[in-house]
Amino acid sequence: MTDQRIHGILAPVVTPFDAELAPDPERLIRHCRWLLSNDVGLAVFGTNSEGNSLSVDERIDLLDRLVQAGIDPARMMPGTGACALPDAIRLTRHVTKLGCAGALVLPPFFYKGVSDEGLFRTFAEIIERVGDTRMRLYLYHIPPVAQVGFSVALIERLLAAYPKIVAGMKDSSQDWQNTKAVLDAVGSDLDVFVGSETFLLANLRNGGVGCISATANVNPGPIAGLYRHWRGADAEERQARLDVVRAAFQKRPMIPALKKAVAHHGHDPKWTRVRPPLVELNEAQVAEFMVELEQIGFTMPGLLDGKVRE
Amino acid sequence: MTDQRIHGILAPVVTPFDAELAPDPERLIRHCRWLLSNDVGLAVFGTNSEGNSLSVDERIDLLDRLVQAGIDPARMMPGTGACALPDAIRLTRHVTKLGCAGALVLPPFFYKGVSDEGLFRTFAEIIERVGDTRMRLYLYHIPPVAQVGFSVALIERLLAAYPKIVAGMKDSSQDWQNTKAVLDAVGSDLDVFVGSETFLLANLRNGGVGCISATANVNPGPIAGLYRHWRGADAEERQARLDVVRAAFQKRPMIPALKKAVAHHGHDPKWTRVRPPLVELNEAQVAEFMVELEQIGFTMPGLLDGKVRE
Repeated sequence: MTDQRIHGILAPVVTPFDAELAPDPERLIRHCRWLLSNDVGLAVFGTNSEGNSLSVDERIDLLDRLVQAGIDPARMMPGTGACALPDAIRLTRHVTKLGCAGALVLPPFFYKGVSDEGLFRTFAEIIERVGDTRMRLYLYHIPPVAQVGFSVALIERLLAAYPKIVAGMKDSSQDWQNTKAVLDAVGSDLDVFVGSETFLLANLRNGGVGCISATANVNPGPIAGLYRHWRGADAEERQARLDVVRAAFQKRPMIPALKKAVAHHGHDPKWTRVRPPLVELNEAQVAEFMVELEQIGFTMPGLLDGKVRE
Repeated sequence: MTDQRIHGILAPVVTPFDAELAPDPERLIRHCRWLLSNDVGLAVFGTNSEGNSLSVDERIDLLDRLVQAGIDPARMMPGTGACALPDAIRLTRHVTKLGCAGALVLPPFFYKGVSDEGLFRTFAEIIERVGDTRMRLYLYHIPPVAQVGFSVALIERLLAAYPKIVAGMKDSSQDWQNTKAVLDAVGSDLDVFVGSETFLLANLRNGGVGCISATANVNPGPIAGLYRHWRGADAEERQARLDVVRAAFQKRPMIPALKKAVAHHGHDPKWTRVRPPLVELNEAQVAEFMVELEQIGFTMPGLLDGKVRE
């Protein structure tokens, strides 16, 4: 397993909801298939998946349905972090049992200013209680949202205590200096994913292994293209083209914007639904957004009528 | 029901854990009885209860055990807020069904910078889906921890849409100007509890109805005493004595300090356990703390050997 750790591009897959705000497994499965057909793996239940807006039962049910639908668990890295230790353990155990490539684990994020010792104990409890050597944990560092994150010292301590099991990290600090510090300190032992394709080329050039990015939901082909050709002469040009698309999404509420793009390009308006406390884009925001996407020539090839073109 | 809304002093009851870090219902019941014997109500599953470190199933099980043990639900205001709407709905429904005085509801706290519209929709969904006129919601405003809070405009909108059901608020902003602004705007329609006895006298003098405070776990009698006698000539003096005790706890990690005090005065060392990501006080912290409690003459009358003296 260790030699076949997942690398490359993953999307925190957006989660569709029905009219009752319940998760819509059929649409989720279709979107996952489209992403996989573009060489993009599935970090379901991430921040941009509204993962923490789903109950533990909802997440387990969706995972089971994805696997039953034939989605390869080896292409999945579901989010399993939670405020309550039993929730994180239950989810991580399930993800491991299903044979997923790994679990992307937020630190417990309710209490602020917690110590590295407290975070170490959290991860130690998860690892010891799941107690499965197949488990691969990816530390999810996203201080702008979780407010609680991983210091380099904490990462080193976890790696030393649980080598192989602590397999990687997603750095969504939006701070390249932080990513660079992690790569310099532990990049040879830890698979570092950046949290945005903005830093993809820099990450790969410094020993990182890929990115897990919101916009991989809508621009998967070109992002996966840079990953495949990052040593090529046109890498900088590819990176620049990715940055134009990223900018159009990033200046808006990201999750509603992603869902609006999927709805628009898939001719499937139901995709725009979000769960509270999120709110869909309003009419004025949609109008501006559509103009900008048109101006930059944004497309989602292969996504039509909510189905993958076979 | 409306005329008998709960007022006065409540404690976010600290949650004891066993050696496996599972909740310990027997110790919790004992502590609840001691608090009630001191005229202090039970805001179980609050911030200082490590409420969000418990799974939804754990919280429901503990509630059922408390009620089965004969604890009066009319003296309880359990925390039911959660990041995932189905969790908040399930907990609020259960609390309402049990006949609790109310539910203390955190806003969803994972996403930051969410809009008042998104928070309004969250509470509207909880209220509509629980769909029980007996429900009494208390808005839990604690921006230092949750980072997401309630503006006065949002409170007014919720009150207008759901009068009676939106019954009150706990203001743990630690900012008296905020509490005063809420009291001035909606104090006649909303029962305002302050989040610390530091502001108890000011709150009562301005139309508020009590406090829900961490230190009510350890100093319940004197805090309830100020509530009963706040119009008395010695009110300022009572307030000053409360402030001395509060200060001794507030300068330390609050939850471990509360549990250490219960362990020490109840001769029951098992009470010191906390769930990760929290960490108990270290030896040096304990030594300093014990000296300070001795210096200020702190006691917990009636708490002995983990039992209430009958």
